[in-house]
Amino acid sequence: MLLVQKYGGTSVGSLERIRAVARRVSEAARSGAKVAVVVSAMSGETDRLLRLAMEISERPDEREMDLLLSSGERVSAALTALALRQMGVTARSFTGRQCGIITDGAHTRARIETISAGRLMRALDRGEVAVIAGFQGISSSGDGDVTTLGRGGSDLTAVALAAALKADLCEIYTDVEGVYTADPGIVPEARKLDRISYEEMLELASLGAKVLQTRSVEFAKKYGVPLVVRSSFNDMPGTYITKEDEEMEKVLVSGVTCDKNQSKLTLLGAPDKPGIASRLFSEIAGAGLVVDMIVQNISADGKSADISFTVPRTDSRRAVEITGRLARDLGARGVDVKEEISKVSIVGVGMRTHSGVASKMFDALASHNINILMISTSEIKVSCVIDSKYAELAVRVLHEAFGLEKAA
Amino acid sequence: MLLVQKYGGTSVGSLERIRAVARRVSEAARSGAKVAVVVSAMSGETDRLLRLAMEISERPDEREMDLLLSSGERVSAALTALALRQMGVTARSFTGRQCGIITDGAHTRARIETISAGRLMRALDRGEVAVIAGFQGISSSGDGDVTTLGRGGSDLTAVALAAALKADLCEIYTDVEGVYTADPGIVPEARKLDRISYEEMLELASLGAKVLQTRSVEFAKKYGVPLVVRSSFNDMPGTYITKEDEEMEKVLVSGVTCDKNQSKLTLLGAPDKPGIASRLFSEIAGAGLVVDMIVQNISADGKSADISFTVPRTDSRRAVEITGRLARDLGARGVDVKEEISKVSIVGVGMRTHSGVASKMFDALASHNINILMISTSEIKVSCVIDSKYAELAVRVLHEAFGLEKAA
Repeated sequence: MLLVQKYGGTSVGSLERIRAVARRVSEAARSGAKVAVVVSAMSGETDRLLRLAMEISERPDEREMDLLLSSGERVSAALTALALRQMGVTARSFTGRQCGIITDGAHTRARIETISAGRLMRALDRGEVAVIAGFQGISSSGDGDVTTLGRGGSDLTAVALAAALKADLCEIYTDVEGVYTADPGIVPEARKLDRISYEEMLELASLGAKVLQTRSVEFAKKYGVPLVVRSSFNDMPGTYITKEDEEMEKVLVSGVTCDKNQSKLTLLGAPDKPGIASRLFSEIAGAGLVVDMIVQNISADGKSADISFTVPRTDSRRAVEITGRLARDLGARGVDVKEEISKVSIVGVGMRTHSGVASKMFDALASHNINILMISTSEIKVSCVIDSKYAELAVRVLHEAFGLEKAA
Repeated sequence: MLLVQKYGGTSVGSLERIRAVARRVSEAARSGAKVAVVVSAMSGETDRLLRLAMEISERPDEREMDLLLSSGERVSAALTALALRQMGVTARSFTGRQCGIITDGAHTRARIETISAGRLMRALDRGEVAVIAGFQGISSSGDGDVTTLGRGGSDLTAVALAAALKADLCEIYTDVEGVYTADPGIVPEARKLDRISYEEMLELASLGAKVLQTRSVEFAKKYGVPLVVRSSFNDMPGTYITKEDEEMEKVLVSGVTCDKNQSKLTLLGAPDKPGIASRLFSEIAGAGLVVDMIVQNISADGKSADISFTVPRTDSRRAVEITGRLARDLGARGVDVKEEISKVSIVGVGMRTHSGVASKMFDALASHNINILMISTSEIKVSCVIDSKYAELAVRVLHEAFGLEKAA
C-alpha cells in the first residue's frame, strides 16, 4: 500500500495542527503503508510573503516571486518532518528539486514536464516517511531555478507524485469533509457525496467549487490516480473521485454550483457580417483573458448583432477597454457591462443518457421568476447566467428540484 | 572594481531597511562596480523559525533544521532583488546552490569545501547585481541537501565569495560603525579604529567582540580578502581589516575586550602524577566542549594539584558532570565551579615588538584592587580572568591605562 497524503494550509496552520497531521501520518505509516506527505505553506504565510513583495515592488519579477513564495512550503515540510521524528517516525523532508519535479520555465505558473521520483521511492522503500514541500519544482533550463505551480499547486504536486509513484490512493486533506451537492453555506440540506467521477469533479471545480483545482483533477483523470478529498479535522471518509461507472450514470445531477466572480459584457449593435466575433475574441485571447460563455443575437432587422460574453470579474476592466476600442473601430453602438451576474450550474454524468434535464432546470428557475440571461451546456452540465441577487435562491431551488438532499 | 557587500539581519530588518540597502547597492552599481550582495534573514526571522522547531521537537534533526532556517535568507534575497528591480537595477537572486557553495555534510555547522562561482561571475559580467541568500550551501554528498554554515554564516558566505570572485573589497554592513577600542556601552571614550590587522581582529572576535565571527576573519586572512566593517545606517567609512603593516606595529594595544560568557571549573586536590590533566581534557574534548584557559597549581606539600580551566557558560553543567566523575575515579577532593567570572583582554600586534605590556596591565588592575584569578597570553594578547563584578571597571581602567581614547 502506497499512500500520498496532501495537507492544505489550514491543516498545517499551527504547530498544534502540524502535530495532528503527524499523528495521522504516523498511524498510516504504522499500519504498514508507505507514506509520502505533501504539505502547503502554513495558512496566512503565502499571503504574508505576497504582501511583502507587493509592498516593495509594483510589478514583482516572477522568478524572484517563486524563490520567495516557495519558502513557505519548505518551512512546513521541515516542521512536519520534525513533528514526525518527535513521534519516533523516521521522516525526511524533500524539496521540489529533491523529489525530481522538473517544470517548464513559466515562473509562478509552471507546468510539470517530468518527475524523476527515484530518490523519493528509495526513501519510501527504506521505510521512511517522505515529507514533500508542495507547490514547487525546478525549471528544466540550465539554471535549474525554483519554480512554483500556481494556485492549487500543492494539490497538483500530490496528484503528480501519486501518478509517478503509482500510489494506491492520493488523499487530499482539507478543511471540509468532501465534495457536497451544493455549498452547505447556501443550502443547509446539501449532502456530502461519497463518490463522484473525474468529469463531474472537473466541471464542479471549473464552475466554482473550491475544494480542488481543475488542473489537479485533469492530471488525476489522465493518469487514473484514485483521489479522495477529506477533512484533516476528523475521521469522516470523505469523497472518492474515480473513473465513471454504471452506478454513477443513474444519478441525473450530482451537484449545483454557483460562480459569482464573472462579469457579462455585450458589444452592442455590431454590423452583422462575418469575422466580427472572430476579431473580438482573438483580441481578447491575445490579451490573455479567458472567455467563458458567449451568446450572439441578431437584431430584428437582421443588420446588426449583439455579442454577449462573460470573463472573470478581475479581467472585466481590461475586457471593456478592448471591446470598447473594437466598438469604435467597427462603428458599433457601444459596450454594456454587467457586474452583478452569477452563473449557476448543474452537473451530472447521468445527463448523457437522460433527456429533459435542462428543461427541468429552466422550469425550476422560471417558477421562481428568475430570469435567465445566458445559457451554456456541455455533455454533463448546464449553466445559466442570472442576476446575482437571485444566486442563492437559484441554488436552493435547483437543489430541491433535483432531489439532491436524498442519496441516490 | 568588484565589490561583495554583506548586509546583516538588522540591515534588512524591514521593507524600509531593504529599500535603503537597495539604494546603497544601486549607487555602487551605477558607479560602475560589479556588485554581489549577500543578505542575512530579516532580524527576528531566524529566531522565529528556531522557536517553532524547538516547540515541535525536543532535539530537532539537524538536516531538517537546515531546510527550515535557510528559508529566511531566501526570503531576504528575493525581497532585496525585487527592491533593486523596482529601482531599475537588473538584479537576480542566487541560492547557496546557485552560487556554487559546496560544503561538507555537517548540518547546522557545515564547512565550505569548494565554491564554483562561474554562474555568479557570468551574471556580474553581464552587468547584473547578484543578490545571494547567505548562510547556506549544499552538501557535497550525492543528495545535495541544503546545509547551513552556523552562527555568523552570512559573513562567511560574503568572505568566501569575495575570495572566489577575487573581489577588490568585501564590505560587511551591520548596525555598528566599525570595530572599537572597547565596547562603547562600557567605555564612552571608546574610539572607532580606522584599520586593524586580521590577527588583531581574530583575537578580538574570539575574545567577545561580536562584530565579526572568528571563522570569517580566518577565511579572509587565509585568502587575503580586504574587509571593511561599516554601518548600513550611515555613510561613515568603517574599519578596514587588512594585512599587518609597519604602522600597525607602532600601536601597543588596539583594543580591550570583555567576555562574560565563561565559567571557571577547578578539579581540587587531584593526585600530582602524570596523565591527570591529559585524561581530564581529553574527556572534556571528547564531549565536544571547548576549553579556553588552563592553570595548574601544585599544593605546598607537592602531593596534589588543583587544575582550573574555563569553558563557555552554556557548557558548564556538562563540564561539571565530566570533571566530577573523574574526581571520584581519581579520589580527588572534588570540583569547584565559579560562574561569576569574566575574561578581560588587551589585543595588539605591537606587543610582539614591545615588552612590558602585560605587567602594565597587571599594575593597572592591581591599582584598582582587582584580583586576577587566571592569566593567559599569546603573541598579541593578554587575558585575565577576574570576578565579574569588576568587569566593566577593568575595561575602563585598561582603556585609560593604554591611552586608547587617543588616535595613535
